[in-house]
Amino acid sequence: MVRRGERASEFELIARYFAPLASKAPLAYGLTDDAAVLRATAGHDLVLKTDTIVGGVHFLPGDPPQSVARKLLRVNLSDLAAKGAKPRVYLLNCSLPRDVEEGWIKAFAEGLAADQGEFGIVLVGGDTTATTGPTTLSATVIGDVPRGTMMRRKGARSGDGVWVSGNIGDAALGLRLLKGDDLGLNKSLAAQCIERYRLPQPRLALGSKLRGLAYACLDISDGVLADLGHMCDVSKVGAEISAEGIPLSAAAHRALAAGKVDISDLLTAGDDYELIFAVAAKDELKLSRVARSAGVKITKIGRIIRTRGIVVRGAHGEPMSFDRRGYQHF
Amino acid sequence: MVRRGERASEFELIARYFAPLASKAPLAYGLTDDAAVLRATAGHDLVLKTDTIVGGVHFLPGDPPQSVARKLLRVNLSDLAAKGAKPRVYLLNCSLPRDVEEGWIKAFAEGLAADQGEFGIVLVGGDTTATTGPTTLSATVIGDVPRGTMMRRKGARSGDGVWVSGNIGDAALGLRLLKGDDLGLNKSLAAQCIERYRLPQPRLALGSKLRGLAYACLDISDGVLADLGHMCDVSKVGAEISAEGIPLSAAAHRALAAGKVDISDLLTAGDDYELIFAVAAKDELKLSRVARSAGVKITKIGRIIRTRGIVVRGAHGEPMSFDRRGYQHF
Repeated sequence: MVRRGERASEFELIARYFAPLASKAPLAYGLTDDAAVLRATAGHDLVLKTDTIVGGVHFLPGDPPQSVARKLLRVNLSDLAAKGAKPRVYLLNCSLPRDVEEGWIKAFAEGLAADQGEFGIVLVGGDTTATTGPTTLSATVIGDVPRGTMMRRKGARSGDGVWVSGNIGDAALGLRLLKGDDLGLNKSLAAQCIERYRLPQPRLALGSKLRGLAYACLDISDGVLADLGHMCDVSKVGAEISAEGIPLSAAAHRALAAGKVDISDLLTAGDDYELIFAVAAKDELKLSRVARSAGVKITKIGRIIRTRGIVVRGAHGEPMSFDRRGYQHF
Repeated sequence: MVRRGERASEFELIARYFAPLASKAPLAYGLTDDAAVLRATAGHDLVLKTDTIVGGVHFLPGDPPQSVARKLLRVNLSDLAAKGAKPRVYLLNCSLPRDVEEGWIKAFAEGLAADQGEFGIVLVGGDTTATTGPTTLSATVIGDVPRGTMMRRKGARSGDGVWVSGNIGDAALGLRLLKGDDLGLNKSLAAQCIERYRLPQPRLALGSKLRGLAYACLDISDGVLADLGHMCDVSKVGAEISAEGIPLSAAAHRALAAGKVDISDLLTAGDDYELIFAVAAKDELKLSRVARSAGVKITKIGRIIRTRGIVVRGAHGEPMSFDRRGYQHF
């Protein structure tokens, strides 16, 4: 505990734990100035994304601070991946309980440092404040794309295939395991799901290669149905997907077989941070090559149709119905 | 109250109250995409600033939502002013209690709209989430300056004059009044102080004219002594200021005369959001012209000296001592 009298001040905390994260950004001035400078690359657009995570809502009190830090960055990086952008810098807002342990901040900064290395980003500014509520963390990540090439949610056209990267639903299983649910999984499968919940994998390599190929793209944070719904709403189309075609991990297959979850849980739970995107049938060969070179599994789960709304078809082609599309805060 | 069953979803709230704020930013895509595009102006650097305000810490439960919104933007705009930057766009993170009244959000958005008009900025992205704690709001404001011209905290040199804009300490008095303190002020003076606390005036016109003239500049958010201390620390100099020379409003003079506050309260309280800057003696004439054309009062309160540390001198030149430099969160 940072004790009164001997406790570190706001400025000391910044100098000790956050300033080193900015050491490779000369225009962040070691976080000793009021603002940072960002020099845009000629011929490029900047891509801006911000997201907040709240203790008890987006992460659990027992989550390791390192993974909280990395998840904070990764939920934002995942959006940049979906836009085809290359990440460059980030800003950080930390609202921390007054009795936060300095060890928590230290470990949190270690997580940031690890992901700075992994994703080639650097801290350029931020704000640290006290709160009487839960730890509340915002990151604003800035990347860039060649001018005019950012992928949009809008642009899916009737006849396009609907594709997803990776597997769906593991993070949802991880969250349920952390909350104490028995999903009939062995230790190793359970650990994989928890890892997927705590540490999303932003699909940056795939995203950057999808520019000019995918007509619409976003990342799955609210659940496949909700996010596909967002894509279709702004694109003024609908989609038909096959429940059987959803790519699942061994853990998800096991939990389904044991009757612990059903497919609607996996399609509506969110936190996947995979990409969902629409690609014209004529470009499927090119798409396969691109995914292979990015080292990411992709799966066609359905197609865009003219009729608005999302239809999920079961094993025998029957339309399935769902209570809700995905996670909502309010 | 946004009631269960009939309550507005996260997406509805964004569509209803926040999307209209982005309507003049075509590359924000009506907040319906995952990210916004920002196209930098050729030959300019972007200047990035983020700040968080927390209910009960930075604003009071009874503060009107409109003024909470405007204060959130203005504390960030004040930093851009201190850097000489012209504000362009902002992103917003709102963590709101689950039982937040929709009327609060509506009024909050009205405050944002008012200041968008006043300062020529536009919302380009953000995130709305639920919290079990107090309302927590972050804004990230992005402006620009001609390349390489951002004013720094660093750069004050021995012999430079130390200047401040406006008056010092009124916001601190306003906060004390809101907390119920009797400061011996009449209604009109009290109202002026409260207004200064709730609605800082970012000195953007002055800031942009100080580029190339001030050797070091920042805004006073932690208090004159603390912020002058920050400037001197990074500039590796000290400063000597005159308590008598601090520009005070009629309200502050009255409260001092009534013995309700002393000068140290006014120099250490923060929330002034005036600029403090160092200018060479040879440039004082030019500085006067610049301040006049910006329509802002400026006052020389002391000078930069070689010896580290901040000395405040009283009416007879005697050094005064202070318990603390300014507001700290931890």
